[in-house]
Amino acid sequence: MPLPPEFHDIAKRVNNWGRWGPDDELGTLNLITGATVRAAAATVRTGRRVPLALPLHQDGPQTGVIPGRINPLHTMVQINQELFGPGTVATSDDTVTMGLQAATHWDALTHASHSGRIYNGRPAGTITAHAGARFCGIEKVRSLVARGVLLDVARAKGLERLPGDHAVTPEDLAEAEEHAGLRVGPGDVVLVRTGQVRTLLAGDKHGYAYPSPGLSLRTPEWFHARDVAAVANDTLTFEIFPPEVEDLWLPVHALDLVEMGMLQGQNWNLEELSTACAEEGRHSFLLSATPEPFVGATGTPVAPVAVL
Amino acid sequence: MPLPPEFHDIAKRVNNWGRWGPDDELGTLNLITGATVRAAAATVRTGRRVPLALPLHQDGPQTGVIPGRINPLHTMVQINQELFGPGTVATSDDTVTMGLQAATHWDALTHASHSGRIYNGRPAGTITAHAGARFCGIEKVRSLVARGVLLDVARAKGLERLPGDHAVTPEDLAEAEEHAGLRVGPGDVVLVRTGQVRTLLAGDKHGYAYPSPGLSLRTPEWFHARDVAAVANDTLTFEIFPPEVEDLWLPVHALDLVEMGMLQGQNWNLEELSTACAEEGRHSFLLSATPEPFVGATGTPVAPVAVL
Amino acid sequence: MPLPPEFHDIAKRVNNWGRWGPDDELGTLNLITGATVRAAAATVRTGRRVPLALPLHQDGPQTGVIPGRINPLHTMVQINQELFGPGTVATSDDTVTMGLQAATHWDALTHASHSGRIYNGRPAGTITAHAGARFCGIEKVRSLVARGVLLDVARAKGLERLPGDHAVTPEDLAEAEEHAGLRVGPGDVVLVRTGQVRTLLAGDKHGYAYPSPGLSLRTPEWFHARDVAAVANDTLTFEIFPPEVEDLWLPVHALDLVEMGMLQGQNWNLEELSTACAEEGRHSFLLSATPEPFVGATGTPVAPVAVL
Amino acid sequence: MPLPPEFHDIAKRVNNWGRWGPDDELGTLNLITGATVRAAAATVRTGRRVPLALPLHQDGPQTGVIPGRINPLHTMVQINQELFGPGTVATSDDTVTMGLQAATHWDALTHASHSGRIYNGRPAGTITAHAGARFCGIEKVRSLVARGVLLDVARAKGLERLPGDHAVTPEDLAEAEEHAGLRVGPGDVVLVRTGQVRTLLAGDKHGYAYPSPGLSLRTPEWFHARDVAAVANDTLTFEIFPPEVEDLWLPVHALDLVEMGMLQGQNWNLEELSTACAEEGRHSFLLSATPEPFVGATGTPVAPVAVL
Repeated sequence: MPLPPEFHDIAKRVNNWGRWGPDDELGTLNLITGATVRAAAATVRTGRRVPLALPLHQDGPQTGVIPGRINPLHTMVQINQELFGPGTVATSDDTVTMGLQAATHWDALTHASHSGRIYNGRPAGTITAHAGARFCGIEKVRSLVARGVLLDVARAKGLERLPGDHAVTPEDLAEAEEHAGLRVGPGDVVLVRTGQVRTLLAGDKHGYAYPSPGLSLRTPEWFHARDVAAVANDTLTFEIFPPEVEDLWLPVHALDLVEMGMLQGQNWNLEELSTACAEEGRHSFLLSATPEPFVGATGTPVAPVAVL
Repeated sequence: MPLPPEFHDIAKRVNNWGRWGPDDELGTLNLITGATVRAAAATVRTGRRVPLALPLHQDGPQTGVIPGRINPLHTMVQINQELFGPGTVATSDDTVTMGLQAATHWDALTHASHSGRIYNGRPAGTITAHAGARFCGIEKVRSLVARGVLLDVARAKGLERLPGDHAVTPEDLAEAEEHAGLRVGPGDVVLVRTGQVRTLLAGDKHGYAYPSPGLSLRTPEWFHARDVAAVANDTLTFEIFPPEVEDLWLPVHALDLVEMGMLQGQNWNLEELSTACAEEGRHSFLLSATPEPFVGATGTPVAPVAVL
Repeated sequence: MPLPPEFHDIAKRVNNWGRWGPDDELGTLNLITGATVRAAAATVRTGRRVPLALPLHQDGPQTGVIPGRINPLHTMVQINQELFGPGTVATSDDTVTMGLQAATHWDALTHASHSGRIYNGRPAGTITAHAGARFCGIEKVRSLVARGVLLDVARAKGLERLPGDHAVTPEDLAEAEEHAGLRVGPGDVVLVRTGQVRTLLAGDKHGYAYPSPGLSLRTPEWFHARDVAAVANDTLTFEIFPPEVEDLWLPVHALDLVEMGMLQGQNWNLEELSTACAEEGRHSFLLSATPEPFVGATGTPVAPVAVL
Repeated sequence: MPLPPEFHDIAKRVNNWGRWGPDDELGTLNLITGATVRAAAATVRTGRRVPLALPLHQDGPQTGVIPGRINPLHTMVQINQELFGPGTVATSDDTVTMGLQAATHWDALTHASHSGRIYNGRPAGTITAHAGARFCGIEKVRSLVARGVLLDVARAKGLERLPGDHAVTPEDLAEAEEHAGLRVGPGDVVLVRTGQVRTLLAGDKHGYAYPSPGLSLRTPEWFHARDVAAVANDTLTFEIFPPEVEDLWLPVHALDLVEMGMLQGQNWNLEELSTACAEEGRHSFLLSATPEPFVGATGTPVAPVAVL
């Protein structure tokens, strides 16, 4: 079943292919500049640090529904081992096996493709088992420090959590922006809070996965208009799931990653940040969220921190 | 063979057990405060971001000498998979298996033990295959944003790289501090550049591992006197290897991690930072280096960024 | 809570420590000899081969209840890769991460310990994260080919599957032996069919795990009396679970593995074999079930085959 | 560069596509029947068991040259863990991550493709990251018990090990057959000993890999004429490496796996078997070598045993 005209209409409006040259692999991260980072650093007032990552362990959000996306398996390979002989200083070492998209992560631009293409028009076939993503792998990002903005959609509506069938619209974003008392602008990283992660924190993994509020396929145009650098939220699927339009699966992935070239973050825990922003009465901060540089990876764990 | 009196003398002088209470699991990271973070943010001038992590791939620094510490094996579990049926948006997913200490990483305080104890006097036996580190696992750190200071020992001496048998002494640190034109103080994260990582970047993994310049067992007192929050460098072993005192293996690990409760970072690529600091004529910056929160882990990959 | 006198009484009666010398690491596998293997080969009549392993994939029997025992994650690292250049012969390669006890497996003698001891009185502390099991690791087995005997307890009772609270007793074994029309003897590998694996094959993993029929703590004496080489069955826990005696968990593991030194096999699919034996009217066969020789492992996957 | 006419000529002569029907996924394993297995069992005389697998551990034959084919990493996830509370029976559990072709293994028929096809003419594109091999995955084999024949090419020539540039020819096979005093026939599994594994056992992994004696591209016709079920040997690459014909890489893989549909085994340790056969004066035996049933896998570890 081909993607519907509705999708292609939006795609045309948000498409950034060629905007930063034919060889670009960074997409909207190009909008982060020395100037925007300086401005981001200038937002720091109290020096309060709020971590946004979920803990990494076997009891993570994955339920087995997404094949191969396994929760982290942490194993010890040395425990207080006196490697240099009895009585010497002992060390402990560990290993992990995990799905790179299993917990708090960034999708690389290559995480999605449609019609045989990834961002900037490159063939989807440039992703192989042998080498991973030849183009737009997550290691190309190098660093990700920016002004972060919390759009607390749930709190702006007076809710702890949006209902499972709530598609976050541009109007919702504008409402949360007004509630935040600021204006989202070029190079910002926007964190959209739905409150859905509370379901996970309460122990209900299946309820967290589905049904889930998330971004509407109308939001890419809003982010495009504001020249946002990246967007993350507190859900498993990023976009509303099941989708708004029947049989149109993952349209936001295709619009954000493939058409716009904009990183998406998922499974971010925005609960403590919501409280902190409310307490401090401001919703912008320095956000540090550099992806782990796995070469050729289509996603990666990240340990983001907001500095207020 | 018991640790020599020389070791115990220094241990006594740098010991921080109980300093932040009997239940403390953070050690010198307690020295990072809202005030030091605000000061760190205030160091940002150009907004230039310098990533300090090595790429994560099979061709990483590990050679098999440290058992179980394997270079990252990245595999694809989905490649442009149309999970919802033919013609739908396709996604790609990946997994990794790796030693947590394989590339650019933080040692958790539990990475080392001696005489049956880890930091703050807890029994080393609290690390198990079942649960990893019950105390002082890396996930307890939550965030790590601080003022970073580059002590470019190699450049201060006019060298590209310290010789393999060079133990970096307190005098070397003071010389580099003077070269940097600043004073290391409470809550700083100090990055000590030896230039040794150039060997790795040139493709010589064995030469990178050994012999390697690194910190002398006299440095913990210097860091302790300055109330430094954490220290990282550009070598595999952190401390000089083979060791300064015959048969006294990994004394710096034992002093820093166990006695002082101070995180150590290894395999940090400080080459680009060295150039940037020289170009900008300053050696302090905002450092963001939050560890991936693997629960119970004795170390973790980190993707540190210096913001100048 | 110490193990009860009841346990220690049986332990004394089935204990084989020292029976094959103080250095023995094979236990009852010593009972397999050239003569018993010749006799096993002589049982082959039709040449029919019946595989007894469950398929190895993510959708395996593990549910996450046993920490770290993950179902196999199979990933491709090369797919039709022309490693020697365009147009050359292409190859595909794969990797796996799995719990060694995740599917059809043998427990090594070291899989269980009690009172600080493993089989033959060696300290349990000889198992380390660094090296695995120094003694009695599964690689010591080298080969396992023997006469196999199916004791089809379920079928002997006219049942498809024993109830979840049925502890298989020596009387049940004797009944199945009579049904089989043979006598279990020295060096035999006994396969005890409960029918419980049908629950798994029907898709109910939780029902498969618990409650589960399994061997009674009275069976080790029967196996000991007959000088059996090893025992396997078609359940997750091998022994009845929850246990027969309140708070006496895994007594059969302790008796079989630690005291007797007898390998245990779990998650063996005996359904096709049950049918084959019924059709052919005989219950002994050549069994080939050599463990994969993971060095220092406390268990291992096995792909057993009965040749009738 | 297209495969040369020479290759296609042989391919035509050994091709088995359609021989066992258009849906066949077993290839020459179809030649193993109840009758051949009965005959195999009848070869057992002394009951001596000779294991043919290399130990599975980090110090395995892989050197990193074949991307992703990592030596087994064995880790403990439980060590003497009293899962049910203090004083209860303790258990130990482990996990492994490994390349399925890392040590002693079978190549599945899907391990090789050429001209976009796998065995029986199916598209090579039926192998995906998502599901592995849809057709001819190793799990389809179910069991592999047969008459094994050792063709001890090295010993027949009075050598411990063939030189690195020796391509084993049909004439060499005939010579070894005569030395063995038997005739290779339908359904046999032939083990070809070059002695090359001695290099590995002596600790020289690079010398083991390359240059290596191995099968000539003329051997597939010999195996085809004899209707052999499968072939294994004691080298890393199976066929001579580097290849006999310049730039014709892996022709034997393409002929055996793709054209004939015949399983190949590699890294089999045939040293002990060579001695045993010489001592007993016979070179046929019952061979049990059932692959681990990884679903969709293009290869798999195997722990083969010869019963003499």
